[in-house]
Amino acid sequence: MNSGAIAERDIPDIIATAHALADAARAAILPHFRQAGLGVDNKLAVGFDPVTAADRESEAAMRAVLAARRPADGILGEEEEARPGTSGLTWVLDPIDGTRGFLSGTPTWGVLIALSDAAGVRFGLIDQPYIGERFLGGLGEARWSGPHGGGSLRARGTTTLAEATLMTTFPEIGTEAERAAFARVAPEVRLIRYGCDCYAYALLALGQIDLVIEAGLQAYDIQAPIGVIEAAGGVVTNWQGGPVNEGGQVLAAATPELHAAALARLAG
Amino acid sequence: MNSGAIAERDIPDIIATAHALADAARAAILPHFRQAGLGVDNKLAVGFDPVTAADRESEAAMRAVLAARRPADGILGEEEEARPGTSGLTWVLDPIDGTRGFLSGTPTWGVLIALSDAAGVRFGLIDQPYIGERFLGGLGEARWSGPHGGGSLRARGTTTLAEATLMTTFPEIGTEAERAAFARVAPEVRLIRYGCDCYAYALLALGQIDLVIEAGLQAYDIQAPIGVIEAAGGVVTNWQGGPVNEGGQVLAAATPELHAAALARLAG
Repeated sequence: MNSGAIAERDIPDIIATAHALADAARAAILPHFRQAGLGVDNKLAVGFDPVTAADRESEAAMRAVLAARRPADGILGEEEEARPGTSGLTWVLDPIDGTRGFLSGTPTWGVLIALSDAAGVRFGLIDQPYIGERFLGGLGEARWSGPHGGGSLRARGTTTLAEATLMTTFPEIGTEAERAAFARVAPEVRLIRYGCDCYAYALLALGQIDLVIEAGLQAYDIQAPIGVIEAAGGVVTNWQGGPVNEGGQVLAAATPELHAAALARLAG
Repeated sequence: MNSGAIAERDIPDIIATAHALADAARAAILPHFRQAGLGVDNKLAVGFDPVTAADRESEAAMRAVLAARRPADGILGEEEEARPGTSGLTWVLDPIDGTRGFLSGTPTWGVLIALSDAAGVRFGLIDQPYIGERFLGGLGEARWSGPHGGGSLRARGTTTLAEATLMTTFPEIGTEAERAAFARVAPEVRLIRYGCDCYAYALLALGQIDLVIEAGLQAYDIQAPIGVIEAAGGVVTNWQGGPVNEGGQVLAAATPELHAAALARLAG
């Protein structure tokens, strides 16, 4: 396996591949969205973790694109076994982030696509197929497109909790200690919004909100948001301020100052 | 003022007017959505109740449509003084329901348009301009349209809390007693989703979710959802099982059985 360094000349193919992956996922998922009789398995013995045919078909469609276009790259996906590569690059795929939202018909679930090497996340893409929105960042890109146009991604300049809009999946998730940490931040912010899954990270990169706090994430849940938000000038770490590429507790902020303020409250 | 009875021959003009109102609101709002420097006034001395230029321009655009097309009808809107009519019919308008969501860039705010007479709500329309979705019910209609097609509205057949998906704006809103009542229902349901504003009612009428529980609503927040959900076969009342046309505590359910089960838990 090589070092995973990305040559300038490879970037156009990587970006085009990311779009092809998102296009393939859209085509696989949309026929299932809001359809009655949606097949729901119970992936975990405890709790409610729906996995739909859409989830599996989305990942299979993306893996087929990678097999055809970039067979030397590795794949880490939610649904199937990890596939090692020889290029030093790994595509990290969440075929549907926010399956509970998907099953409820809300339009804030998404497809997450990231490209990582030994040094971390190099590129991320968040796609919302139903609305037709796409957010991408890394390798020189920081752009979005949607049904009424598009533009550059840029996190806004909020530096204090008192001015911040916070988005979170709490109180749905987390341990008691995690909920307590969240409860130390919540009263300090201007506005809290709940339950947007990966769409929250896209809104941070768009400059619409300022903070996202979550827990219990997997690598495939957070690598694409890391790529998009860092390219937009934001900061994404775990609750200790360290790298969060492998998932866990996530703190995403529009500015380093705001990130530091939230980190201090989470620490207690 | 007459009785407000709606003649069969007037229905096409009423439906066409509702679409014209929603189209006018879309055109007024979309140029403001996600724009930096969005003007936010503080309507209340306490709390955070943003009113934007989009809100005011949306209502003004709808009032202009009614002045031109149906000058004899009354108007009750969020932003301007109520305007009495002589026809016995009143248009009840919320130019942007979910202003907090609007200001956070989420796509689940909406425009609410209802038509009422002395007997109650006769017609409702929920529009989501950014996605391009419209849900309407009453006067023989129960339909939706969106970016990938459309169809009939029909609430699903869920009869027990154990099978139900519940959507709510709690824990964001409500008094302590209201939160306690909500907390008696929450552990009984299969899945809870948070924070979708009026979009939650559209999802109930679409057969995607089963229950919505809210508090602190105004007449213009709930009349359009009543029209849409009742046309789709669902039930909408206050927490005592009575009419909720004037707002307050709202319980919307997919079936009478599910409604009764939730009502019993809310009562304690």
